[in-house]
Amino acid sequence: MRSEGSAEGPAPAPDAGLLSPVRAGTEAEAATGDAAYLAAMLDAEAALARAQARLGIIPGDAAEAIAAAAASGRIDLVSVARRARGAGNPVVPLVADLRKLAGDAGRHVHKGATSQDIVDTGAMIVASRARRGTLAHLGRALDALAGLAERHRDTPMAGRTLGRQALPTTFGAKAAGWLVGCLEARDRLRSVPLPAQLGGAAGTLDAHGDLALDLADAFADEAGLARPVLPWHTRRGPVADLAAALALVAGALGKIATDVWLLAQSEVDEVAEAAGPGRGGSSAMPHKRNPALATLVRSAALQVPAYAQVVLAAQAAPLERPAGEWHAEWQPLRECLRLTGGAAETAAELAGGLEVRTDRMRANLDALLDVLGEDPGPGAAPALVDRALDAYRRNPA
Amino acid sequence: MRSEGSAEGPAPAPDAGLLSPVRAGTEAEAATGDAAYLAAMLDAEAALARAQARLGIIPGDAAEAIAAAAASGRIDLVSVARRARGAGNPVVPLVADLRKLAGDAGRHVHKGATSQDIVDTGAMIVASRARRGTLAHLGRALDALAGLAERHRDTPMAGRTLGRQALPTTFGAKAAGWLVGCLEARDRLRSVPLPAQLGGAAGTLDAHGDLALDLADAFADEAGLARPVLPWHTRRGPVADLAAALALVAGALGKIATDVWLLAQSEVDEVAEAAGPGRGGSSAMPHKRNPALATLVRSAALQVPAYAQVVLAAQAAPLERPAGEWHAEWQPLRECLRLTGGAAETAAELAGGLEVRTDRMRANLDALLDVLGEDPGPGAAPALVDRALDAYRRNPA
Amino acid sequence: MRSEGSAEGPAPAPDAGLLSPVRAGTEAEAATGDAAYLAAMLDAEAALARAQARLGIIPGDAAEAIAAAAASGRIDLVSVARRARGAGNPVVPLVADLRKLAGDAGRHVHKGATSQDIVDTGAMIVASRARRGTLAHLGRALDALAGLAERHRDTPMAGRTLGRQALPTTFGAKAAGWLVGCLEARDRLRSVPLPAQLGGAAGTLDAHGDLALDLADAFADEAGLARPVLPWHTRRGPVADLAAALALVAGALGKIATDVWLLAQSEVDEVAEAAGPGRGGSSAMPHKRNPALATLVRSAALQVPAYAQVVLAAQAAPLERPAGEWHAEWQPLRECLRLTGGAAETAAELAGGLEVRTDRMRANLDALLDVLGEDPGPGAAPALVDRALDAYRRNPA
Amino acid sequence: MRSEGSAEGPAPAPDAGLLSPVRAGTEAEAATGDAAYLAAMLDAEAALARAQARLGIIPGDAAEAIAAAAASGRIDLVSVARRARGAGNPVVPLVADLRKLAGDAGRHVHKGATSQDIVDTGAMIVASRARRGTLAHLGRALDALAGLAERHRDTPMAGRTLGRQALPTTFGAKAAGWLVGCLEARDRLRSVPLPAQLGGAAGTLDAHGDLALDLADAFADEAGLARPVLPWHTRRGPVADLAAALALVAGALGKIATDVWLLAQSEVDEVAEAAGPGRGGSSAMPHKRNPALATLVRSAALQVPAYAQVVLAAQAAPLERPAGEWHAEWQPLRECLRLTGGAAETAAELAGGLEVRTDRMRANLDALLDVLGEDPGPGAAPALVDRALDAYRRNPA
Repeated sequence: MRSEGSAEGPAPAPDAGLLSPVRAGTEAEAATGDAAYLAAMLDAEAALARAQARLGIIPGDAAEAIAAAAASGRIDLVSVARRARGAGNPVVPLVADLRKLAGDAGRHVHKGATSQDIVDTGAMIVASRARRGTLAHLGRALDALAGLAERHRDTPMAGRTLGRQALPTTFGAKAAGWLVGCLEARDRLRSVPLPAQLGGAAGTLDAHGDLALDLADAFADEAGLARPVLPWHTRRGPVADLAAALALVAGALGKIATDVWLLAQSEVDEVAEAAGPGRGGSSAMPHKRNPALATLVRSAALQVPAYAQVVLAAQAAPLERPAGEWHAEWQPLRECLRLTGGAAETAAELAGGLEVRTDRMRANLDALLDVLGEDPGPGAAPALVDRALDAYRRNPA
Repeated sequence: MRSEGSAEGPAPAPDAGLLSPVRAGTEAEAATGDAAYLAAMLDAEAALARAQARLGIIPGDAAEAIAAAAASGRIDLVSVARRARGAGNPVVPLVADLRKLAGDAGRHVHKGATSQDIVDTGAMIVASRARRGTLAHLGRALDALAGLAERHRDTPMAGRTLGRQALPTTFGAKAAGWLVGCLEARDRLRSVPLPAQLGGAAGTLDAHGDLALDLADAFADEAGLARPVLPWHTRRGPVADLAAALALVAGALGKIATDVWLLAQSEVDEVAEAAGPGRGGSSAMPHKRNPALATLVRSAALQVPAYAQVVLAAQAAPLERPAGEWHAEWQPLRECLRLTGGAAETAAELAGGLEVRTDRMRANLDALLDVLGEDPGPGAAPALVDRALDAYRRNPA
Repeated sequence: MRSEGSAEGPAPAPDAGLLSPVRAGTEAEAATGDAAYLAAMLDAEAALARAQARLGIIPGDAAEAIAAAAASGRIDLVSVARRARGAGNPVVPLVADLRKLAGDAGRHVHKGATSQDIVDTGAMIVASRARRGTLAHLGRALDALAGLAERHRDTPMAGRTLGRQALPTTFGAKAAGWLVGCLEARDRLRSVPLPAQLGGAAGTLDAHGDLALDLADAFADEAGLARPVLPWHTRRGPVADLAAALALVAGALGKIATDVWLLAQSEVDEVAEAAGPGRGGSSAMPHKRNPALATLVRSAALQVPAYAQVVLAAQAAPLERPAGEWHAEWQPLRECLRLTGGAAETAAELAGGLEVRTDRMRANLDALLDVLGEDPGPGAAPALVDRALDAYRRNPA
Repeated sequence: MRSEGSAEGPAPAPDAGLLSPVRAGTEAEAATGDAAYLAAMLDAEAALARAQARLGIIPGDAAEAIAAAAASGRIDLVSVARRARGAGNPVVPLVADLRKLAGDAGRHVHKGATSQDIVDTGAMIVASRARRGTLAHLGRALDALAGLAERHRDTPMAGRTLGRQALPTTFGAKAAGWLVGCLEARDRLRSVPLPAQLGGAAGTLDAHGDLALDLADAFADEAGLARPVLPWHTRRGPVADLAAALALVAGALGKIATDVWLLAQSEVDEVAEAAGPGRGGSSAMPHKRNPALATLVRSAALQVPAYAQVVLAAQAAPLERPAGEWHAEWQPLRECLRLTGGAAETAAELAGGLEVRTDRMRANLDALLDVLGEDPGPGAAPALVDRALDAYRRNPA
C-alpha cells in the first residue's frame, strides 16, 4: 500500500513549521498535522463501523476488522493527498485503500456515508484533541497570570495611552486584565460544541432506513463527539463558531504579547522574557535579548483572525454541498487550531517566566509624577485585581 | 451650537445607504447611524451623571441638567465629527459642547471619565438597541422557516452536491437546515454580554476613590448594560465576541440566500421571491424577475466576516489604550451591526414570501430518478424536519 | 421629485464620519459620499447620452436635455437609496427619476445600458476623482518626507528591532524608508487603469448593432475613463486591482504612522506631532500630547486591507452578473478610497509638521553606545538617503 | 548534523497537502515547501558569500566552501524549524549549522547580515522560482482559453444575470472574458519586482563600510533578484505587492471555476470537465460526475485574498524590525504562492479538457427565446471575442 515517492509528480514537501515557529514542535502541531487528520478520518471510519455493528447493520467482526485496518498505520499519506485531486477530497482514495486493507470486511467500509461525513467528523476529532491540549496550556497560562496579578497587586507603574504616560496603575492590574481576557476566551473555546457529521450523500441519511437517527447518535457517541440536531453538511455554524472562538483566544493571547513587547523595549525595560539558552538571541547582535516568545505569539494573533474569516465567510455555502466553500475551510481551520494552540503553549512559557522589573517601573513612573506634580495613586487598581482573581477562582480549569 | 456648514472643509457627505441597499431604510440603519451613536454617547454621559448622583458624587439636580442637555438634540453631529480629528475621537468635542449646554452643571459633565468610557459604552448601547431589532427580525424569519419546514416536510426534491443532482431530499429538510442554522446563530447573538465601560484615564477608576467599584456597577445599571468584571479598555473580548456572533448570524442568513439564488435559477426554477411592485426588476430586461432579496442578503454575508475580522485582529491592542487598533474597530463593528440587522430584516421578508414550486421540484427530481433507475426515497428527511421543529419549539424567541 | 422624509421607514441616518475621524471633513470624504456617487452615476448617464448623440443614436438635443436633468440636483438621494432595495441596485429608481426630469428626452435615457454599466462607471468616475485628491496629498507627504530625509541625513539615532535598541542609524535613513515606501505605493496607485463599463444586459452590447464597439469607446471618452478591452461586468480585475493598490498606499502610510507612534512614546520621545489648538488633546489628562494624527492614519491602515480583501474575493463572480458578489464590492471599495484618501491627507499634515528631537535621539543612542562599548557609526545610512532622494527626484508628482 | 526525531517534542508532522488538494503534488507545492524555503535561505547565504568574495571581503575559496556546504543537503529541516523558536526565526540555528558544515570557512558565513536578510531574500528566491512555474501554467491556461474563445466565437448560449437567463451571448464571449481576466492578472504578476534584501542589523548595511552599496547590488545579482532602492526590512511594499498580485491571479482563475461549476450543474449541463480515471468521482454516488477541478480552483480563490490581506496589513510594521508583523507574513505569503500556483496548474488542466455541449447551450437558449418572443442575437459578442484574441496575441507568454 505504501509506495515510496508514491503518486506521479515531484517529491513530497513536508511542512515542519519552518515558516511558523510559533507552532514548530508544539503539541498543537502534532495534533493537527496531516498525519493527525489522516488518523482522525480513519477513526471516523472505525467509529462508523462500530456504530453500525451496535445497531446490527454490519457484523461485529467486520467492525473489528475495519477498526484494525484503520489503526494499522498502513495508509500512505502522500498518496492519499495526491489522489484527492481526482474527487476534490481525500476520502475517495482513503476509502479505496482502507477497503483493500480490511480484506473481506472491506465491503462494509464507509457504508451509507459520504466523503463529507468523514472529512467533517475527522476535523472535529482533530479539533477535540487539539482543543484539549490548548485548554491545558491556557490553564497553565492562567495560573501564571494569576500569580503575576497577585504578586504585583500593588506594584506601581505608569499606565500608557496612545504610547504616552497617562496616570499610575499597578502591574497587577495589567496582569489582571490579561487574566480576565484569557479566562473569558478560554470559556468561550471550552463551550463550543463539536458535533459529529453523518448525513450521507444528500444529508438525508438515505441509506439507513428506520435506523437513521439512532445511527447518527451512535456514530457521534463512538466518535466521542456531540450529537447535532441535524447533519450540518452545509449548515456550517459549528465550524464557524469554533474558528471564531479560536480567534478570540488568539486575540487574548496577542494582547499579552503586545504589552510584553512594548514593556520590554529598551527605553521602557519594565519586563523581560526569561533568559535561557537559545532564547531571544539575534543572529547579528550578541548584546540583544529579544522578546522572542511575545513575537511568536503576536505572529499567531495577527494571522488567526484572517483564517477564521475564511471559515466565517464559507457559511454561505450552496445547496447540499458547495463546490469550493467547504474545501476552502479545511486549511484555515487547521491553522486556527495550530496557531492558537502553539500560541497558548508559547504564552504559558512566556507568562511563567516573565521577569518583572519593579525598579524600572518605579523609575519610569517617577518621570510621570514629575510631570503631574503630585501622585494620584493607583486608584482602584488593587481592588480590580481582587475582582479578577475572584473571577479566576470561581472558574477553574 | 448647531452651525450650518459647520467646521471648515467641504459640505457633509450623508450616507443614506446608496451603496448598501441591504440596510437602506431598515431599522438597523436607523439604530446604527451616526445620529444614533451620538445619542448613545450622550446617553452614556447622562448615565454617568445619574450614577454619580445616586452615589452622592455630584448633586442630583446637576445630573438632571446634564441629562436634559444630553437629550436636547442641540449637539451638531457634523461639527463633532470633524473636531474629532483633533483628539482622534469624538468625545473631546462632544464633552465641550455638552458642558456649554448644561450651564452651571457643566463642570460635573464627564467627571472622572475618559473618552474611551463614553465611546465604548455608547457603542454597547447602540449594539444593545440594534440587537433588539435584529433578534425580532430573526424571530420573524424563524417563524417563516419553521412554517416552510412543516408545510414541505414531505415535498420531494433533488439534493444537489457540487451543483450536480445527487439523491432525493425534501424541501422541508432544506428549510429545516436553514431553521437550525438561524436558531443556533440567534442564540449565540442573544447570549453575548454587552458590558458598560468605565475605567477612567488608565483603566484604574482613579478619580473615584472608595466609590470606584460601586460607581462602575451603578453606571452599568444606569446605561442598561452588563457589569463587567474589569474595565475592558484594552481587553477587547467583549467587542470581538459581538462581532463574531454577528458574523455567525450573517453567515446563517447568507446560507439561505445562497440556496434561494441557486434554486431560483431559470433552469432550476424551484423557488421564487414574492412578486411585488418594485421587487426584483431589471433596468434592462422587463421579462426578468430577479432574486433581489437573496442578492441583498448575500451582499451582507460576503462582507460581514471581513469586518468582524478587523475587530478580532484589534484585540492585540497596546497597553492602556492603543494608537489605532481601538479606532479601527468602530466602523467595522457598526457595519457588522448594520449589515447583519439589514440582512435579518431582508431575510424575514424573503422567507415570509418565498414561493415554492413543488411541480418544478418534482420535474427536476424525475430527471434524477431517470438516471438513478429507481427512487430511493427521501431517507430520513421528514424525521430530520421533526427534530428541527422540536429544537425550534423548545427555544422560542 | 425631492420628497422630505421620502420613502417609508425611519428618517435617514447621515454618516458624517463620527466613527471615522481619519476621513471626517476631508476631501476624500466629500469625493466618495453617497452624494458624490449619485452625481457620478448621473454623469455616467449623461456621458452615455452624449456618446450616443455623437454616433447619431439619439438626437443631440435629447443628450443635452438628459445632461441638464442629470446635473439639476433634483434627484432625491434618500429615496433612490431606499427604492434600490427593490431591484438590488440604485439604478432602477435613478433611471425612473431621471426619465421624469428629462421630459420628452426621457425615453432616450439609459438606452441599451444595464444597471451595472452605470454603477460600475459611476464608481470609476468617483475613483478617478478621489484618486486625484489622494495623489495630490501623497505628493505633499512625499515633499515633506523628502525634506525630513534630507535635513536629517546624518542625524544619528538608535535603530530598534523587536523593540530593542540594535545599532545606530540616522533619522534621515528612516525618513528615506518612509519616502520610498510612499513613492512606490503612489506609483502603483497612479498606474491603475480606471475603465468605463458598457456591456448592456448580458455584456454583449446587444442593443447597439454595428456601432457597439465605437459606442463603448466613445462612452469611455465622454466619461473621462480608460477604454477597456472588453466589458468587465464579471471580470472584476479592474476593481480588485484598484482596491489592492489602495491597500498598498494605506500600508505605506501606516508604516510611517506606526513609527511615529512608537518614537513619540514618553520614554522614547524622539518625535512629536505638531502642537496646535485641538490637536492631540485628551478628555481626561490635560498634561498629555497624543500622536493623534498617527493614530488616525493607523486606524485606516488597519482597516483597508480587510476591505480590499472583500473586493479581491469578489472576483470569483458567477456568470454574467453575480447575485451578491458584485453588490458586496461597493461599500468596501468606497471605504478603501475614503480611508486611504483621508489617511493621505492626514499623513501629509503629520509629515509636514513633525517635530524631530535630535537631542533625545542623541541621548537614547548614547545609552545604546554604552552597551556596545564603541560607536559603530551609521553605516551606509547617509548614502541610502541619497539613493532615496535620487529615486524621488527622478519620479516627481 | 541530521538528527532523527531531532529536537525535543513529538515527531514531525509533515504536511503533504491532505487538506489542500488544489496544490497536492503540484509544481507549486514542491517549489514552496519547507525544504524549498530551507534551500533558498541557504542559496541566499551562498549568494552573500559569493558577492563578498567578488568584492574581496572574504576569500574566494571560503565562498566556495560555504556554497558547497549550503548545497550539501545536510541541514536538518526539522531541527532548524524547532530551534527557530528560540530567536523567533530560523536563521539563527541555520547559520549555526551552516558554520559547522563549512569548516574553516565557517567564520565567513553570514558576514554582516542579519536574519531578516536571509529570510526575506530566501522568500524572494522561492517566489521567483514558484512564479516561473505559475506563469508557465498560466500560459497553458491562456492558450486553452484562447482556443475556446476562437472555436466558440459564434456558439450561442444564454447569458445569465443573478442566476436568471437574460439575453443571448456566445460561449466564445464568455471564454474571452476568462482570457482577458487571466491575461491582465498574469501581466500584473509578471511585472512585480522581486528584490533581494540586504540591510544588516538595523538596515544600514553597517558592517560593510564603503563597499556597502556595491555589496547590496552584487548580492542581488548573485541571488538572481532585483536590486532594491533601499533595504526593505520594514518597508514591506515588495511583499505586499506580490501577495496582491497573486490574489488577482487567484481571483481571475476563480472566476473561470465559478462559471464552470454553474454551467456544469445538472439542470444547465452546458459544460463538463474532462472525464478520466479518478476524476470527479463521488464516494457515495457512482452516477455523479463532479466539477472537481473547478472545485479545487475555487477552494484556492476563496482563501488567497484572506492570506494576501495578512500580508497587506503587515505593512504597518514597527521601526527597524517588527515583533510579529514580519513573522506573520511568512506563512500567508507561502500560501498565496502555493495555492495560486496550484490553482494555475489545475485551471490549465480544466481549461484544456473542458467539454462544451453546444446542444445543451442551444436548448437552454431556446427556452429563453421562447420567453423573449424573438431572437435578439448575440450582439457584439463575436466582435468582442476578436478584440480579446487580439489582446492575447499582442501579449504572449
